[in-house]
Amino acid sequence: MGDQDGEMTSSGYDPPILAVRQAVALALAEDLLPLGDATAKLVPGDRSAQLHIVSREDGIVAGGVCAVESFHQVDSSIAVDWKIPDGGRITRGSVVAEVAGPLRSILTAERTALNFLCHLSGVATLAGRFVEAVSRASQITAVLDTRKTTPGLRALEKAAVRAGGGKNHRGNLSEAVLVKDNHLVGSSITEVVARARELWPFKLVEVECDTIEQAIKAQDAGATMVLLDNMTPDEVAACVVELRSRAGGKRVLVEVSGGVTLEAAPLYAAAGTDFISVGALTHSSPAVDLGLDIPVAPAG
Amino acid sequence: MGDQDGEMTSSGYDPPILAVRQAVALALAEDLLPLGDATAKLVPGDRSAQLHIVSREDGIVAGGVCAVESFHQVDSSIAVDWKIPDGGRITRGSVVAEVAGPLRSILTAERTALNFLCHLSGVATLAGRFVEAVSRASQITAVLDTRKTTPGLRALEKAAVRAGGGKNHRGNLSEAVLVKDNHLVGSSITEVVARARELWPFKLVEVECDTIEQAIKAQDAGATMVLLDNMTPDEVAACVVELRSRAGGKRVLVEVSGGVTLEAAPLYAAAGTDFISVGALTHSSPAVDLGLDIPVAPAG
Amino acid sequence: MGDQDGEMTSSGYDPPILAVRQAVALALAEDLLPLGDATAKLVPGDRSAQLHIVSREDGIVAGGVCAVESFHQVDSSIAVDWKIPDGGRITRGSVVAEVAGPLRSILTAERTALNFLCHLSGVATLAGRFVEAVSRASQITAVLDTRKTTPGLRALEKAAVRAGGGKNHRGNLSEAVLVKDNHLVGSSITEVVARARELWPFKLVEVECDTIEQAIKAQDAGATMVLLDNMTPDEVAACVVELRSRAGGKRVLVEVSGGVTLEAAPLYAAAGTDFISVGALTHSSPAVDLGLDIPVAPAG
Amino acid sequence: MGDQDGEMTSSGYDPPILAVRQAVALALAEDLLPLGDATAKLVPGDRSAQLHIVSREDGIVAGGVCAVESFHQVDSSIAVDWKIPDGGRITRGSVVAEVAGPLRSILTAERTALNFLCHLSGVATLAGRFVEAVSRASQITAVLDTRKTTPGLRALEKAAVRAGGGKNHRGNLSEAVLVKDNHLVGSSITEVVARARELWPFKLVEVECDTIEQAIKAQDAGATMVLLDNMTPDEVAACVVELRSRAGGKRVLVEVSGGVTLEAAPLYAAAGTDFISVGALTHSSPAVDLGLDIPVAPAG
Amino acid sequence: MGDQDGEMTSSGYDPPILAVRQAVALALAEDLLPLGDATAKLVPGDRSAQLHIVSREDGIVAGGVCAVESFHQVDSSIAVDWKIPDGGRITRGSVVAEVAGPLRSILTAERTALNFLCHLSGVATLAGRFVEAVSRASQITAVLDTRKTTPGLRALEKAAVRAGGGKNHRGNLSEAVLVKDNHLVGSSITEVVARARELWPFKLVEVECDTIEQAIKAQDAGATMVLLDNMTPDEVAACVVELRSRAGGKRVLVEVSGGVTLEAAPLYAAAGTDFISVGALTHSSPAVDLGLDIPVAPAG
Amino acid sequence: MGDQDGEMTSSGYDPPILAVRQAVALALAEDLLPLGDATAKLVPGDRSAQLHIVSREDGIVAGGVCAVESFHQVDSSIAVDWKIPDGGRITRGSVVAEVAGPLRSILTAERTALNFLCHLSGVATLAGRFVEAVSRASQITAVLDTRKTTPGLRALEKAAVRAGGGKNHRGNLSEAVLVKDNHLVGSSITEVVARARELWPFKLVEVECDTIEQAIKAQDAGATMVLLDNMTPDEVAACVVELRSRAGGKRVLVEVSGGVTLEAAPLYAAAGTDFISVGALTHSSPAVDLGLDIPVAPAG
Repeated sequence: MGDQDGEMTSSGYDPPILAVRQAVALALAEDLLPLGDATAKLVPGDRSAQLHIVSREDGIVAGGVCAVESFHQVDSSIAVDWKIPDGGRITRGSVVAEVAGPLRSILTAERTALNFLCHLSGVATLAGRFVEAVSRASQITAVLDTRKTTPGLRALEKAAVRAGGGKNHRGNLSEAVLVKDNHLVGSSITEVVARARELWPFKLVEVECDTIEQAIKAQDAGATMVLLDNMTPDEVAACVVELRSRAGGKRVLVEVSGGVTLEAAPLYAAAGTDFISVGALTHSSPAVDLGLDIPVAPAG
Repeated sequence: MGDQDGEMTSSGYDPPILAVRQAVALALAEDLLPLGDATAKLVPGDRSAQLHIVSREDGIVAGGVCAVESFHQVDSSIAVDWKIPDGGRITRGSVVAEVAGPLRSILTAERTALNFLCHLSGVATLAGRFVEAVSRASQITAVLDTRKTTPGLRALEKAAVRAGGGKNHRGNLSEAVLVKDNHLVGSSITEVVARARELWPFKLVEVECDTIEQAIKAQDAGATMVLLDNMTPDEVAACVVELRSRAGGKRVLVEVSGGVTLEAAPLYAAAGTDFISVGALTHSSPAVDLGLDIPVAPAG
Repeated sequence: MGDQDGEMTSSGYDPPILAVRQAVALALAEDLLPLGDATAKLVPGDRSAQLHIVSREDGIVAGGVCAVESFHQVDSSIAVDWKIPDGGRITRGSVVAEVAGPLRSILTAERTALNFLCHLSGVATLAGRFVEAVSRASQITAVLDTRKTTPGLRALEKAAVRAGGGKNHRGNLSEAVLVKDNHLVGSSITEVVARARELWPFKLVEVECDTIEQAIKAQDAGATMVLLDNMTPDEVAACVVELRSRAGGKRVLVEVSGGVTLEAAPLYAAAGTDFISVGALTHSSPAVDLGLDIPVAPAG
Repeated sequence: MGDQDGEMTSSGYDPPILAVRQAVALALAEDLLPLGDATAKLVPGDRSAQLHIVSREDGIVAGGVCAVESFHQVDSSIAVDWKIPDGGRITRGSVVAEVAGPLRSILTAERTALNFLCHLSGVATLAGRFVEAVSRASQITAVLDTRKTTPGLRALEKAAVRAGGGKNHRGNLSEAVLVKDNHLVGSSITEVVARARELWPFKLVEVECDTIEQAIKAQDAGATMVLLDNMTPDEVAACVVELRSRAGGKRVLVEVSGGVTLEAAPLYAAAGTDFISVGALTHSSPAVDLGLDIPVAPAG
Repeated sequence: MGDQDGEMTSSGYDPPILAVRQAVALALAEDLLPLGDATAKLVPGDRSAQLHIVSREDGIVAGGVCAVESFHQVDSSIAVDWKIPDGGRITRGSVVAEVAGPLRSILTAERTALNFLCHLSGVATLAGRFVEAVSRASQITAVLDTRKTTPGLRALEKAAVRAGGGKNHRGNLSEAVLVKDNHLVGSSITEVVARARELWPFKLVEVECDTIEQAIKAQDAGATMVLLDNMTPDEVAACVVELRSRAGGKRVLVEVSGGVTLEAAPLYAAAGTDFISVGALTHSSPAVDLGLDIPVAPAG
Repeated sequence: MGDQDGEMTSSGYDPPILAVRQAVALALAEDLLPLGDATAKLVPGDRSAQLHIVSREDGIVAGGVCAVESFHQVDSSIAVDWKIPDGGRITRGSVVAEVAGPLRSILTAERTALNFLCHLSGVATLAGRFVEAVSRASQITAVLDTRKTTPGLRALEKAAVRAGGGKNHRGNLSEAVLVKDNHLVGSSITEVVARARELWPFKLVEVECDTIEQAIKAQDAGATMVLLDNMTPDEVAACVVELRSRAGGKRVLVEVSGGVTLEAAPLYAAAGTDFISVGALTHSSPAVDLGLDIPVAPAG
């Protein structure tokens, strides 16, 4: 993209271009091999077109770079004028991009481009809904994604979450320590946090806690963050109060998780948490409906 | 898999093992590089465990082969005893598989295995709901998927649709001809169908139609199938009657498409259609919630 | 390619560009690693050249896109002016393309470019011979390829067959159903065709038949197509007559296969078949001899 | 393969297993994605079979490792008992291998396995014919392949040439120096050979020569080998005599090339050459016909 | 590896097996294509051997998993009995592993296996020297690696650093925020740290500082860590004292960097730093000399 | 690169561009996935910069093409004006290249570009030191690399050796025959050389020799080259005299190897050897320190 789409890459929302290139190449391969686009070959080769990517519902755009890359990997002569960068809000009828070039090539790339765009905009849109819900109850609580991402699309979906106003939890198992129940079999929280600090002195250390007692132990052991799992908002609020009251120099960050719905999110935010993480952002967000249309001429 | 999981591969639902291997390798890479699972390294290396994959809601299983492959790519010494093959129905509490081996390795593979399983079971489960809804209204109408699949997961999601009782529309742009509006600019349906038969005499030829007149033209031109897009059930029923009444030797197959909901699906089926295709099966199915749990000992 | 070679991609003969990119990258890697072109480094780096790709025998061109891609992957500054698109006929002395740029780079890419071009033109040329032979006997019989392609070159060879005037049988095992002897062990044709229609309602279903009785059963079972294997032209003719006489609404398509030679092809065509498939198109076509020459100045 | 197929890998004919793994994975992918083998899924999943790979004509086997790898990548439970290693001679009816396991898996892998085996045996068989022809005229002349190999199959085809009794010319552009006309523009043979010795003191240096004068210059310049291109056998014989008579300590090796036919090969060998290289071995060898058959029970 | 090498994978030092598989496959490909191991084919195919990997100098082992994988990718029948796991100390004559199997296969894999082992043991050994030097002066200072790793070997070299007793700085640009001079152009430290906390609330934030004033600003802004670049030990000590004296609840971690030598390392540790990072661990560590020898029979 | 960097590719030092592309893509992936450059996103997207790659010590440049490719794969709009091609000498302060473009993109690519450049310049610089040392003692002795290269970087490191004035020994196991002790178990040198000539008549054949008797046998057997391993310079000199005195028409080339130091190299050269090979060139060369700096304005 680089030079061609400066506007699109000027936000902090864009995924690594390497991940985009690889994902698009795989997606085109699964749609086109071995015989190519059987139907597009029926269109005369010299026919060109200018089409619009138009939204059919409200939402937040994400995946623009993927859509552009899809068109360009099929045919570098397709010109894409992207109108609404990742993170931009759309409504029914919004023209997200203008696409011009050989009709055959545009039709061949269309579905791949839209599959990225509709899915990733779906992720951004759902993230945006959670962010909005939470913001009504708290100025400090951030909405986080999880590692429950679609296999192969981690980088793209995490970027879509950012486009929707959410923040990223650890990118993968390599980035930070998150101690769960199964890691604790036969060891105490204190021991495991100490081991984590010893092996990975540079990393954040988070501990999943089912009870307030565990959360206190984690804070005392020097964990950076606790993950309160499957507690009610009231339990969380009590836990936050207790943790804050006992905190000396090192206040632990508090995350809640576990099937948090759009309705419950403000309650958890009001409980004083730093983070609410929502797996559904990436594993259950419905696609946003966008299509490639022949532009409608303005009425004269 | 082969020898190890004969049970799993005996249905017609399994995806090509090559697609499974590649998708799992990519998913593990995005979760583990560059430093591996920072948290699992805190667990003593000689600890082993036996865990269960348990469902927390109702649904239909798909993606079993992917889950097994995820564990084995991390550590071939993990033993997976898969209990419920793809296509099997599960309820809250169903034990889908038993997983035994080094605890570290199991924890490292857990999320990747579940990401495949929860997403693909979500696809199968939604497909199953549409199939059930349609079956109440018609014995002949099949539920089809579309090419609106998650980029990189085409093969796996189409297999999940089969596991849910749905059928596959064309696998990709190479498999069959589907003439849409944009292919028809400047040409008649008759011309394009003839061109398709000439270039691709071996392939199915389908034509997307917005009106009954187009559908008749397509049938007369010798199309294998018509896709009635965005019509009401009544319009579809009228169209089917008209097409059947005019059919000579070659009865055209009829597919409806365009945002068909679970509620509307039986109405379209009752209209006498052969196929109802539903993009939402693959682009908007919520994940089924499955987790890796410590087995609960039966009460004595 | 896209913008640079619009002429080349305007036919229906071109292979998917993704397949071209991958095949060329592999071919260059196997010719150049690890030390590069040891001989080209002996040529002064500032020397440039203009060379012609010239045919040394009669034939039909295919693989032009691959040749261009080979030059460009080595050095994007090589200018290739392609004269004869895929499907074009050539004779001894035909200038297929002009290649200009740094001499070193051209020499490094030469053999890879020609290996694609000579092989794929060989496929197109043999396909063209069969098409010509068949056309003398029938206006309806098409020449089909098979899945007996060179491993790794399926997409390119199938495109070359189209360039030679042939048509493509199924692209791969995923595209259509073709029931052979070994699929029928323990089941009747009727049962297997029914199972195929149930599992894959969208696909073509073909049945390989050794006898006229089998062919009748297949037609009655609703197969789309029968493959008459290893029959004489007379047997085929009798079979076609019988099938047509019994056909109600659904006339089955008839393909013959099994070592059909150039000499026998017109006889099989005259027997009234729809398709003659020839494995030799892709597994035994001799290369067409093309080379990279210094252009000869026209006599003054 | 390793432990499983010790017999097969004990010759010097086997290709690098890495090349085999990659080529087979690509070939299976192009035959099976995205939906897998649509027809094999019609066969009951619990059906097993024992089939034979049988030759339908005379020839020399090559590609056995590829065929075995094809079966094992599809299903590691398929047992392959390979009977005739690469380089072995076969006649009509020879049983090359016994294949046993799940019928579905065997059918899915069949065509890919055979495509490798038939093509590579074709290469070996043609190489064997040239070797035999040459051996009648000379004890010292070896038959060489060229770089005119099928893109992507270099390693496999060069191994097949060895299986047929031929020898390998340079593996690729990186292995040795071969100075052709186009490398000599503006420089003398003496200069270029000296430059080659300076840049690549470890490598063989060969010079393509159209005349006896060039060959003498190349020998005098210290080339390891000369390639006599497009000369008649008599011209070659005269050239060899002249070169040998002038050779001091360093006798140059002599290769002939340029469309050498099976008929002409003995004449070139009798001319005293060290090598005859034949591009047709790899670019125009017809496939050997082998198939997967149900074994015929011996008459009692 | 999994089941076969439980001993090796029980430490926290092992790299992700996926990174090992990919790196070994690439390394073997560059050593073996296109013709395989020309010399090994001269050894009779039925010859087997038992050889020892022996150290010829003192050091710390790393890369054992890579060596084992190298042998197994060439031939899965090679048995490797690994004696000294990653992190183990070796002296001249230490037998690191016993390797038994087909001689040809062992010779083919030897150099690749040793290239990994010697390089990665070199990294571990140099890390061990820095750790030992630092430990003499401080109990709290840890030795860190950097991102100055060999391209393509990041995961393996970072694991080797751990094997040598060092700790890992961020794995890559995605894991943590490290603000350097060039990121600060036109913005204050306070602004950029705030922006980092806003965009990446989950991540560590470190700021590179050239002066004590910058370090104070970074601590006040809430950075997790400061990187003191190119200061003398005395300057660092003064800076640490100042920072600690001003720290309220949030004590910033202190890292020093910038060409720290083995001699200077203890001085920087004594200055009270938390971390000393050393690029040379991965970009300039000499290989440890290990070889594959015929075992010497013990004297009787 | 091609058109953009004609200057850089005009030497014989450049690695195959395919190897460069692959290595850079891998290196960027390991530094950027899954979340991209977390810190660069803090820089305003519209900020651009012009920076210099400056050397901080003396040396010889190599890897320029890799550095340029690193910048371009991240953002094709970055303009790189490369000043000193591979093989050029640099001193402290030399400006090797000017890099201009979006600041974010430059910072993201910086470390990957420098990792290639510093490592490969380290290889070239050490090669240059050996070449200089040897040249003081002999006009004929060349310095060779070995196969002891960093896994994955074979092609790049061998090109860097050429940039430093060294020559390449065989590129890999496929290029030439090198018979070592372990190949000789149970066979004589005479037998193995004969077998090599038979199987690989086109290849160089070298024999590793520990004694003068072995070297004589190798010369008599017709080996192209002997490798004298672990002999003193005096032993080597005696061996060379003996070999030359006995040579008839075929003078064998003589290589010495085995831990040759910079100090010992001239002694081995003076002994009359043709080649001195040094594994340390690629396995133990320290990186050259180069950095990306803000250009210093010239004093007015």
